[in-house]
Amino acid sequence: MPDLESNYNELISRYKEVAVIGSVNGLLQWDMQTIMPPKGSERRSDQLALLAGIAHNRMTSPRIDELLTALEAHSGELPPEEQANIREIRRDQKKAVKVPQDLVEELSRHESVCHEVWVKARAKADFDMFAPYLEKMIALVRRQAECLGYKDTPLDALIDLFEPDATVAVFTKLFDEIKSVSVPLVRKIADAPIKSDRAFLHRDYPIELQRRFGEQVMKSIGFDLDGGRLDVSVHPFCSGGLGDVRITARYNPNAPQQAIFGIIHESGHALYEQGVRADTFGTPLSEALSYGIHESQSRMWENLIARSRAFWTFFLPRLKELFPTQLADASLDKFLLAINHVQPSLIRVEADELTYDLHIIVRFEIERDLFAGKLSVSDLPRAWNRKIEDYLGVVPPDNGREGVLQDVHWSGGMFGYFPSYSLGNIAASQFWSAMKRAMPDLDKQIATGKFSDALTWLRANVHQHGRRWSRDELLQKATGKPLGTADYLQYLTDKYSDLYRL
Amino acid sequence: MPDLESNYNELISRYKEVAVIGSVNGLLQWDMQTIMPPKGSERRSDQLALLAGIAHNRMTSPRIDELLTALEAHSGELPPEEQANIREIRRDQKKAVKVPQDLVEELSRHESVCHEVWVKARAKADFDMFAPYLEKMIALVRRQAECLGYKDTPLDALIDLFEPDATVAVFTKLFDEIKSVSVPLVRKIADAPIKSDRAFLHRDYPIELQRRFGEQVMKSIGFDLDGGRLDVSVHPFCSGGLGDVRITARYNPNAPQQAIFGIIHESGHALYEQGVRADTFGTPLSEALSYGIHESQSRMWENLIARSRAFWTFFLPRLKELFPTQLADASLDKFLLAINHVQPSLIRVEADELTYDLHIIVRFEIERDLFAGKLSVSDLPRAWNRKIEDYLGVVPPDNGREGVLQDVHWSGGMFGYFPSYSLGNIAASQFWSAMKRAMPDLDKQIATGKFSDALTWLRANVHQHGRRWSRDELLQKATGKPLGTADYLQYLTDKYSDLYRL
Repeated sequence: MPDLESNYNELISRYKEVAVIGSVNGLLQWDMQTIMPPKGSERRSDQLALLAGIAHNRMTSPRIDELLTALEAHSGELPPEEQANIREIRRDQKKAVKVPQDLVEELSRHESVCHEVWVKARAKADFDMFAPYLEKMIALVRRQAECLGYKDTPLDALIDLFEPDATVAVFTKLFDEIKSVSVPLVRKIADAPIKSDRAFLHRDYPIELQRRFGEQVMKSIGFDLDGGRLDVSVHPFCSGGLGDVRITARYNPNAPQQAIFGIIHESGHALYEQGVRADTFGTPLSEALSYGIHESQSRMWENLIARSRAFWTFFLPRLKELFPTQLADASLDKFLLAINHVQPSLIRVEADELTYDLHIIVRFEIERDLFAGKLSVSDLPRAWNRKIEDYLGVVPPDNGREGVLQDVHWSGGMFGYFPSYSLGNIAASQFWSAMKRAMPDLDKQIATGKFSDALTWLRANVHQHGRRWSRDELLQKATGKPLGTADYLQYLTDKYSDLYRL
Repeated sequence: MPDLESNYNELISRYKEVAVIGSVNGLLQWDMQTIMPPKGSERRSDQLALLAGIAHNRMTSPRIDELLTALEAHSGELPPEEQANIREIRRDQKKAVKVPQDLVEELSRHESVCHEVWVKARAKADFDMFAPYLEKMIALVRRQAECLGYKDTPLDALIDLFEPDATVAVFTKLFDEIKSVSVPLVRKIADAPIKSDRAFLHRDYPIELQRRFGEQVMKSIGFDLDGGRLDVSVHPFCSGGLGDVRITARYNPNAPQQAIFGIIHESGHALYEQGVRADTFGTPLSEALSYGIHESQSRMWENLIARSRAFWTFFLPRLKELFPTQLADASLDKFLLAINHVQPSLIRVEADELTYDLHIIVRFEIERDLFAGKLSVSDLPRAWNRKIEDYLGVVPPDNGREGVLQDVHWSGGMFGYFPSYSLGNIAASQFWSAMKRAMPDLDKQIATGKFSDALTWLRANVHQHGRRWSRDELLQKATGKPLGTADYLQYLTDKYSDLYRL
């Protein structure tokens, strides 16, 4: 037993060091995307690449393998939580040893370059400028996928980096179910007699007041501002961990709903990070389960909670205090219809809750075809536009800025990431149904500005478990069933039937 | 030769990695002192300690020693600049190998804790609260000094970390020379009939306008804002390197001169960092020579240039554009007398140019006695107050906030650092005399807002050389003589005789 214990402690202390290096990398990236001066990018890319290399080098050290092997042989003698840490560290270590360090550093370095080119190409709406860099990125992640191994398609290996136990086949099934409900629903809404009046959302909303409202909501829902920040960036994101979780917003002075729901979305991510166990911090037990489950928390707050009648029963009067003239003619009904307005459009991050999944499905299917060799980089702009037209009925212009160039992900090598967004929607609805069963007066609480019971439920059923269970085990314990679209499709149908009186 | 070349390249690439890790540490510290949320400090201290350990571990790797030894055997065959890099890397490596890694990490960790306690103790004016942490810090730096080795006193080993080739004996001599001139000068000024009217400096100066003026001056003197930033912190500082140099300011709405001269001071540091050679970046050839020479650049801009009649001939009308009512009654003569007002006082960072050195000398002599075993930690508050009274004629209250608790340095383990400030004054005057000899119309240029020739001279004679030469070699080349107080004491005498018509 003393051997077992000292081995376990050494393993944890080595793993924690890797986590600390990862947290430094996260801060460097936050800084790069918020406040770094333009000429800092070259050195920043050196810093990021070196740290990625050091973290990889430590994670792949033979000593970690040795410790894991020794512990696995007697794993049954350890407490179940320690067994879970060993299982998850082995999962990470297995992935790490398969990818050589030079590829890790090359990927990190090319991410910095490729991101910079993407920013410029997008500003100029020039896909050809981006294409060779994207080509190289795809070659690098393909090499990564070959190193990691897969059964059906290289994309499976990449998906597994974000969503363990998911594959192209799994997502294809889930997404076919979503399409079968949401595509006809979008059509029905287009034909519905009810139309929303959104004029008041295009008035002048000073940014400082938007920020103040955002901060008010953050505090109300439980974001601890002594352990986090709200800043500005071109692409909103959440980064950091317990003690220092930072979210960013992008403000549009003539569309306040963008920053408001953006801030609530990122706060949902932040509440997950602020809700992990402190006593196991730096180990898998205090890490988010997967990108999809992370996304379930952001979408829970952004959509299930913050687009509801209950939420705005409480907050609309408060929003009107800050913007009395702008919102003078906005009744609660009118406001709810406006912020839930369904309108097929071109830009994912501005899409409404219902059409959002269709944007994801377009990207997923393109990635699937790309990695199956059915599409090449030069085909992407046209393939993109064709699919958007098929699923959403709108036609993007040729310039790419509102099409294939709009998302940051591919420039960062994040292929296989998009499906996590929709998985988040699915899981969020499933949690929401369970929360409503457990707390029948939840809507009433929210309508009076009380969010603590909702947060306590999420802390107890999601945040506190970290990577203790697999995704399906967690869902089973929290909601009584594994991942499935039933609750989500019911939620969508009920919500929009009610709003648009279908 | 091919061996020599590949050895040199490997050495440089290893050294550059250590420098990259150091630059990451610098950013983490900048973040900690400007924007980090309060609950982030525990994890930040883990991050800093781990990176300090990694950098130390790499710098002390046997491979670096091997490479240095191989290169030193054939050093004569290499170009002189490469010889200089080898010499300086050996200097760093020798220091690094003497200090064990656990002490490096313990120091880093205790710095974070000790700094936090100091902040609280200072706020509460409670020296007893700080004392045990200071005691531990002194024990740690004493251990460090013992590892490093010294001839006369442990303080020599610590001074050498900031100012190579300086010792307690060297500073004692320089400071005795300064005291012999500045102490009587301060007395004469106190008796002079001319009194400055500073009322207009205590009016209401909105912070945003102060910041705007600061940025205007930064741009005028050559600070590249695409490769740097200006932010806010409790203690103004400069950090970062080429491409991303960040300075901070502290604003007092009723004392604009504090932020103005603070910004110019930190900009002087920043201009040094922005002025190093890009082609050798990451090697000693592109690193600042010493803390004292760094300080010569900040004091050059803050005092020699920005407290001069020429400077305000150009900038006072511009300052008046931003603050027309506040400065309505401030003539150039009145303004110059006000910003150069000599007044013995308690706080170093608010001291005038003439009495500043006396604050340094107090600290130096206390450190000297502390490390010679003539003072213990519990003696410090009284010893401090007695010396301040001796040299400045003012009596600090007992609470310590305006006495021994005022400076951040000791909480960060920075003993032996203070003398660098005065060394900066000495060297700055020496450079300034040389600049005036080389460019007799320099004052005229400055009076029209032209700073490019001054900056070009500093770039060519100081910044571009990095650690190529020793301090005395650099001064010899740039000014025709080694370090000495003659120019400085002449400058002080002339300046104050003129201002106060002594």
